[in-house]
Amino acid sequence: MTIRTIEVRERVMARNDQLAQQVRNRLAAHDVAAFNLVSSPGAGKTTLLERTLAALGEELEIAVITGDVQTRNDAVRLAAHTDRIVSAVITGGACHLDALQVLTALDEVDLARTRILFIENVGNLVCPANWDLGERGKIVLFSVTEGEDKPLKYPAMFERARHVIMTKTDLLEHVPFDIRLAMANARQVNPSLSFFDVSAWRATGLQDWFTFLRRVAARESAAA
Amino acid sequence: MTIRTIEVRERVMARNDQLAQQVRNRLAAHDVAAFNLVSSPGAGKTTLLERTLAALGEELEIAVITGDVQTRNDAVRLAAHTDRIVSAVITGGACHLDALQVLTALDEVDLARTRILFIENVGNLVCPANWDLGERGKIVLFSVTEGEDKPLKYPAMFERARHVIMTKTDLLEHVPFDIRLAMANARQVNPSLSFFDVSAWRATGLQDWFTFLRRVAARESAAA
Repeated sequence: MTIRTIEVRERVMARNDQLAQQVRNRLAAHDVAAFNLVSSPGAGKTTLLERTLAALGEELEIAVITGDVQTRNDAVRLAAHTDRIVSAVITGGACHLDALQVLTALDEVDLARTRILFIENVGNLVCPANWDLGERGKIVLFSVTEGEDKPLKYPAMFERARHVIMTKTDLLEHVPFDIRLAMANARQVNPSLSFFDVSAWRATGLQDWFTFLRRVAARESAAA
Repeated sequence: MTIRTIEVRERVMARNDQLAQQVRNRLAAHDVAAFNLVSSPGAGKTTLLERTLAALGEELEIAVITGDVQTRNDAVRLAAHTDRIVSAVITGGACHLDALQVLTALDEVDLARTRILFIENVGNLVCPANWDLGERGKIVLFSVTEGEDKPLKYPAMFERARHVIMTKTDLLEHVPFDIRLAMANARQVNPSLSFFDVSAWRATGLQDWFTFLRRVAARESAAA
């Protein structure tokens, strides 16, 4: 029974990878840089996107596809910060987005007027790791309230990410969390990770993140 | 393709439910009350169990089966607080425990000397919801750092739970979190939920939780 499950999963994954390549081709044709945001539930993906859309949504022509198990709450929150279209995907129980959902949601996005696409995945540190969505890179949000050991306990997610955003850093003085140990644990799993430290709620530490996004967008424009 | 996945999943789930019944029968034969602890990663399951084992592990004859994707970190942490056996299950990538794993892990537990069994599930608000482990009830840990909307976004988990433990309440004054709204959202999904408020790290609010466990253990002994 286990073997049958794996066989089906492998076929599904192979189909997903083909669709992810279609997503990648469409994004490349329009010089759009896509980032797949992953984290535990409540680590602050939506709050970071709210801040980012408010500050840079128009300037960098940011679009968002946001995935949720059952509601459109995150899409509603984000839409309040931008006139740009936020594409909501309801997974209906699934614990991750897949490439078919992203490919379908892309039909709602004006790619000719988009330079950066954020794909806000379902809050989950396990399932989304294996699903290629055609993104340029995965970004893991890692809240300082979660404990330093999360990269060791959920290594697949950190192995496959390019960047880690340490979130809720305004709480560092109130929690027993050693941020250097947390970052060392993440680097142990994936030495090539780069890090941002932010408190999206307090709007602190966002400048490095914004600078990074401006640089990404400028490169896309230069390539166009 | 989707349909094939669902067919396999339904067969797997049916087999899981049979195994969960076997778990339930073995626990009932020894008058053991089992609770399945679920939450986001980093909501504080292990810290709560550390406090609970230190205070009541011997008195209430508590045993623990702890599930993790890849490490034995949680089992090591818990073993430091008790001479009782902590049974570690490594799921090898799966985002939840299943009944076969629990049934197997039960072989390591001296059920004749156990009144309460905690099953610490993988940190995940989606996957564990549908998997019956033979427990008496699911308990959701819900950290005040996660946002009030989590019960609406992950309703399956809250629908199937009996109790909610609000965790990290020492951080309430530092986060934009309305605990009454969070509880109302949970009750909207499941009106029969009961609540505990704790800070396991600060060891505050634990008395109601301990009283509840003592009452559960006394009932089991009375039934024996």
